[in-house]
Amino acid sequence: MQPIRQRVTVDFAYDVHFTEQLFHPDNPLLAHTIHRPDEPGSKKAVAVIDDGLIAHWPDLLDKLDGYARVHSEVMTWAAEPVVVPGGEAAKNDPALVDRIHRTVYEAHLDRHAYVLAIGGGAVLDLAGYAAATAHRGIRLIRVPTTALAPNDAGVGVKKGINAVGTKNFLGTFAPPTAVLNDTAFLQTLDDRDWRAGIAEAIKVALIKDVDFFAQLEQVAAGLAPSTRDLAAMEAVNERCAELHLEHIAASGDPFEMGSSRPLDFGHWAAHKLEELTGYALRHGEAVAIGIALDCVYAHLDGRLDEMSLQAILDLMDTLGFELYVPELDAHLDEPDHPRCLFQGLDAFREHLGGELTIMLIDAIGHGVDVHAVDRDRYRDAVRYLRSRHERTHRPEQVG
Amino acid sequence: MQPIRQRVTVDFAYDVHFTEQLFHPDNPLLAHTIHRPDEPGSKKAVAVIDDGLIAHWPDLLDKLDGYARVHSEVMTWAAEPVVVPGGEAAKNDPALVDRIHRTVYEAHLDRHAYVLAIGGGAVLDLAGYAAATAHRGIRLIRVPTTALAPNDAGVGVKKGINAVGTKNFLGTFAPPTAVLNDTAFLQTLDDRDWRAGIAEAIKVALIKDVDFFAQLEQVAAGLAPSTRDLAAMEAVNERCAELHLEHIAASGDPFEMGSSRPLDFGHWAAHKLEELTGYALRHGEAVAIGIALDCVYAHLDGRLDEMSLQAILDLMDTLGFELYVPELDAHLDEPDHPRCLFQGLDAFREHLGGELTIMLIDAIGHGVDVHAVDRDRYRDAVRYLRSRHERTHRPEQVG
Repeated sequence: MQPIRQRVTVDFAYDVHFTEQLFHPDNPLLAHTIHRPDEPGSKKAVAVIDDGLIAHWPDLLDKLDGYARVHSEVMTWAAEPVVVPGGEAAKNDPALVDRIHRTVYEAHLDRHAYVLAIGGGAVLDLAGYAAATAHRGIRLIRVPTTALAPNDAGVGVKKGINAVGTKNFLGTFAPPTAVLNDTAFLQTLDDRDWRAGIAEAIKVALIKDVDFFAQLEQVAAGLAPSTRDLAAMEAVNERCAELHLEHIAASGDPFEMGSSRPLDFGHWAAHKLEELTGYALRHGEAVAIGIALDCVYAHLDGRLDEMSLQAILDLMDTLGFELYVPELDAHLDEPDHPRCLFQGLDAFREHLGGELTIMLIDAIGHGVDVHAVDRDRYRDAVRYLRSRHERTHRPEQVG
Repeated sequence: MQPIRQRVTVDFAYDVHFTEQLFHPDNPLLAHTIHRPDEPGSKKAVAVIDDGLIAHWPDLLDKLDGYARVHSEVMTWAAEPVVVPGGEAAKNDPALVDRIHRTVYEAHLDRHAYVLAIGGGAVLDLAGYAAATAHRGIRLIRVPTTALAPNDAGVGVKKGINAVGTKNFLGTFAPPTAVLNDTAFLQTLDDRDWRAGIAEAIKVALIKDVDFFAQLEQVAAGLAPSTRDLAAMEAVNERCAELHLEHIAASGDPFEMGSSRPLDFGHWAAHKLEELTGYALRHGEAVAIGIALDCVYAHLDGRLDEMSLQAILDLMDTLGFELYVPELDAHLDEPDHPRCLFQGLDAFREHLGGELTIMLIDAIGHGVDVHAVDRDRYRDAVRYLRSRHERTHRPEQVG
């Protein structure tokens, strides 16, 4: 007998805003985002906050309280904020997911209530995963506070936490209700976090947009942590968010059910290096190394010309990225060793499913999918980065 | 500045099949479902199986092995089957979710691999939730083995497990890859499970389709557990699945992000009764009571005529449903008591979000949304069911 053929189309819509002083009582953006004319009454909300942020913004909790007091017709805090560790620790501890679930339960949040996630990418991922699974999905407003904001964790449609020792092993696809960027938060980033965020901008420029790469080169000195040109960073963030959002919307497969690819250039090695360093490397720092590695490989493989490669590596140098860590080649000749970099290739394929697909570039601004790699050439690429690193870091000896 | 407006459309497609002897090596359905011409190679799969099933079908594991041997070019079992308790126990134990996640990890299932969930609604929910969250979603094939199959757990787009003492507190929206019904499994259901499944058919008939209700009346004697007309049950299952699938596809909001309603007639009381009886009531048994309660209420409220009400209660009697349990009125006059039935109204509103919305009927085949209820009248409805029950169960005393 004939099957019943089910076709279901789901439309998601969300706006990505850039503002300043998001929690100033006179800034209507958050209240406007929460208010829906067809849903009367004050909406319950719970904030999940990156503890690193509170150190820099000690009045943040008071501001949140004050905002809800002024906008009490629109929103009500239904529980004390859930303050969680920032950085990858947020994604490594399943008890934090349970804590957010329990708060949702005890505060009687329903599916029309809001979780407001305020923090870096890891905290957004954690809070997003918890919100997406409670009651099959509570509304999520993301307030990204690091320069990594314009990437998937900030504006994308997926969230994930780490489990069984594997990055993002658990997760869902579930778009947010809105993304509200407050550029003021960028001011208090430490140098490493400020810099790390720029890696995702370099990534998307290299595979999508040569003009954006030129823009990055132009403002590189200003973007360096020692200078911190906030206006330049804002412009970079907005363009980066735009490119990520366009990619997701245009992919035809935003939930990656088939073989469509996320913007994961440089990420196969990056994810493995994060694990191998016990997450001592920030995600963006690992992505910078991953990008450098794949660009050197693309050059050695005859895909990318020497001048482009040097322009890419120069940009990273200007920004102060370190492009070599010993974990790159600690077990490079032992393919079965769990700490061999190449295990990252297998994990990457396994996570995405199907055939191995690595994105490389054949020119600045143009990504290409590659389904087979030459491991000896990758070993050469690691050696290239290592000797480049040694040249830079060991002053020439006399005599 | 203007926000970036993101619009994402996701299309889901899946087929619901009815077959017999699904795991007979000559039945190509499962292999056809797994095979995709654009994805070469034998696909990895792991089965999650309801342990109640294995008691009745002791050769099931051998059959699964044999099927994969014959169809080895298409599929490979990547791990031993995960056998889990059937019934609500499957959804109450978070360790079972972890066990499936760990199997997925150890068997190196990727996002193009398959979890094959074989069992009753609770096992389908458990396996579905675990599959939907591993790697942000592994493909799921559901093989419903109870007469509850044609309802949401079988053909729908959502899955949930119980947490913080609350039914379906955790879950996701994620459609399956396919649903393969093997009617042979219905033969070995015990009387309670056989009967329980029919409750969902009555539910959907009452709110959607007067002709389907007439069909149920016509075959009621055959559907009773003492008779077990398998062909009649198959026909009922198929129509029930069709109605559920149409509702989801036509809702315009299949992931219930706004205020669109699932097919939850009778379910506010049913979910509470399941909790109050410690899940001693099967889901379908609780749904039958919930439907009876809401129909009596609709009648007392002047919405539903007497003749229709009696036809509904008669149908349930013919099938052997018990329409009263003491948990209905144990704490009915103590609205704040956690074991008061009316707590189910609050929980129901909270789970779905927004305004309270209860579905009632004003005629057989026609549901109506109601946003306020009269609790005194509901107390009368409970008394009605109780005295009706006492009349049936206590033989008249002599003298």
